Amino acid sequence: MIKNKDFREKTEKLFSDANFIKELGIKVKNIDAGLCETELVIEDKHRQQHNFIHAGVIATMADHTAGAAGTTLIKEKEEILTIEFKINFIRPAEGEKLRCISKVIKAGRLITVAESEVYSINGGREKLVSKAMVTLTPVEME
Amino acid sequence: MIKNKDFREKTEKLFSDANFIKELGIKVKNIDAGLCETELVIEDKHRQQHNFIHAGVIATMADHTAGAAGTTLIKEKEEILTIEFKINFIRPAEGEKLRCISKVIKAGRLITVAESEVYSINGGREKLVSKAMVTLTPVEME
Amino acid sequence: MIKNKDFREKTEKLFSDANFIKELGIKVKNIDAGLCETELVIEDKHRQQHNFIHAGVIATMADHTAGAAGTTLIKEKEEILTIEFKINFIRPAEGEKLRCISKVIKAGRLITVAESEVYSINGGREKLVSKAMVTLTPVEME
Amino acid sequence: MIKNKDFREKTEKLFSDANFIKELGIKVKNIDAGLCETELVIEDKHRQQHNFIHAGVIATMADHTAGAAGTTLIKEKEEILTIEFKINFIRPAEGEKLRCISKVIKAGRLITVAESEVYSINGGREKLVSKAMVTLTPVEME
Repeated sequence: MIKNKDFREKTEKLFSDANFIKELGIKVKNIDAGLCETELVIEDKHRQQHNFIHAGVIATMADHTAGAAGTTLIKEKEEILTIEFKINFIRPAEGEKLRCISKVIKAGRLITVAESEVYSINGGREKLVSKAMVTLTPVEME
Repeated sequence: MIKNKDFREKTEKLFSDANFIKELGIKVKNIDAGLCETELVIEDKHRQQHNFIHAGVIATMADHTAGAAGTTLIKEKEEILTIEFKINFIRPAEGEKLRCISKVIKAGRLITVAESEVYSINGGREKLVSKAMVTLTPVEME
Repeated sequence: MIKNKDFREKTEKLFSDANFIKELGIKVKNIDAGLCETELVIEDKHRQQHNFIHAGVIATMADHTAGAAGTTLIKEKEEILTIEFKINFIRPAEGEKLRCISKVIKAGRLITVAESEVYSINGGREKLVSKAMVTLTPVEME
Repeated sequence: MIKNKDFREKTEKLFSDANFIKELGIKVKNIDAGLCETELVIEDKHRQQHNFIHAGVIATMADHTAGAAGTTLIKEKEEILTIEFKINFIRPAEGEKLRCISKVIKAGRLITVAESEVYSINGGREKLVSKAMVTLTPVEME
């Protein structure tokens, strides 16, 4: 399934090269074939009008981490683009940290599908706050 | 359909009270019953690894503007929460600005459904870059 | 935008060649570039446990009609496949007929996106019961 | 989590009382708290224009089985309605049978979220052909 032996370096670059991800503070914690895990320490800037973590923060994490999971399984010259995603917000998100784990459920020539689960960590307790399905496509970049 | 005569003020507060929206720079341009329009001047911090505007920025705008459109049609004591959304990325987003227009297609007692269209403005030309369907619920807040 | 002058015949074949569509009774009413409209006369077999029209009937109509709208814009040797769809059920569906109208919002080389609106017709009154976003891909068939 | 000791009988009735499900031939195989498994023996009537199983058949199975999984966790007087679902078609579906397994990932007072995986069984080999996320709501019926 692995088509690029340097998949870890390539996937890490997805985080160091993306301004919006650095701006938010999303850090990669773990990369494996078909899998990526990220973490975000919550700051006041991440909140919405009721002091919960904004759905957009969670969606960004779910999308980018899914793209990273997909990136582990593509060829050296390819990049992953998001075609679409769907995300359910299961409970209001609060706490010190978010953790996202994304897994590829199908890596095709044309279409890659990944799932992302986002957990809030609040006083040491972890709760599922969101789940997403993400449709990706590997494209050859010049 | 309007259940709160101060719906404009209430909807504007959704933007002034949400840290993440201020952090990104999303501004409300127009509010009407069942409708909200927003704008974002693109800065370098909004970009992803290929210099396009990050999908998370677009998704945040689509979600928050849809929630604002839904907010125009709820009661004084209610707030809108996002249950889930689905977003398609139709073409890579680049340019000076994003514009989002959200419309409620059903405002129910239990479920409100809105659609968001996000356009990029590049050298004066506007292009549809994304479309989302957003499922919202009005909840009574204490 | 039209890449196949015989797009009407090709699209009609999508209905006459699909057993499940004939089984349900979905009929094509109108075909144009980037657009398809279908109709279904409701029978008892289409119902669910509360006598409403089953969500699966509506989803089938939304998906197949979207695929047909996409088919109008592809090359002679290509066929449309559904990658994924998302569908909201806006109100319980009842009545004598369903009408579905699907429009392509982006016809790309790799990805086509269409939207489907399904209306119930009950005593001459038409109501939106469902809206879907459908991601399609044109593939060359041997 | 179980609010109705007769949840198995109630869930079975979802299959015996729904005409469209009987018409298609979807049979319930297993019911547990937060879980439902169904099976469908493929006939020619289930096919689309390329002889694959129609996406609408798979979507119907994913939706109805998810609703059944949700039904296991609601009160005696409540019924489950589908608010929306999103489904990815991972590979073309062919074979003698489909099997669907649905699991509730959140059973809330207002919103229940379930996931459905649909597998094709072809010459004894099982393959994931589709995955869906389904948003449900328990409503009190008179």
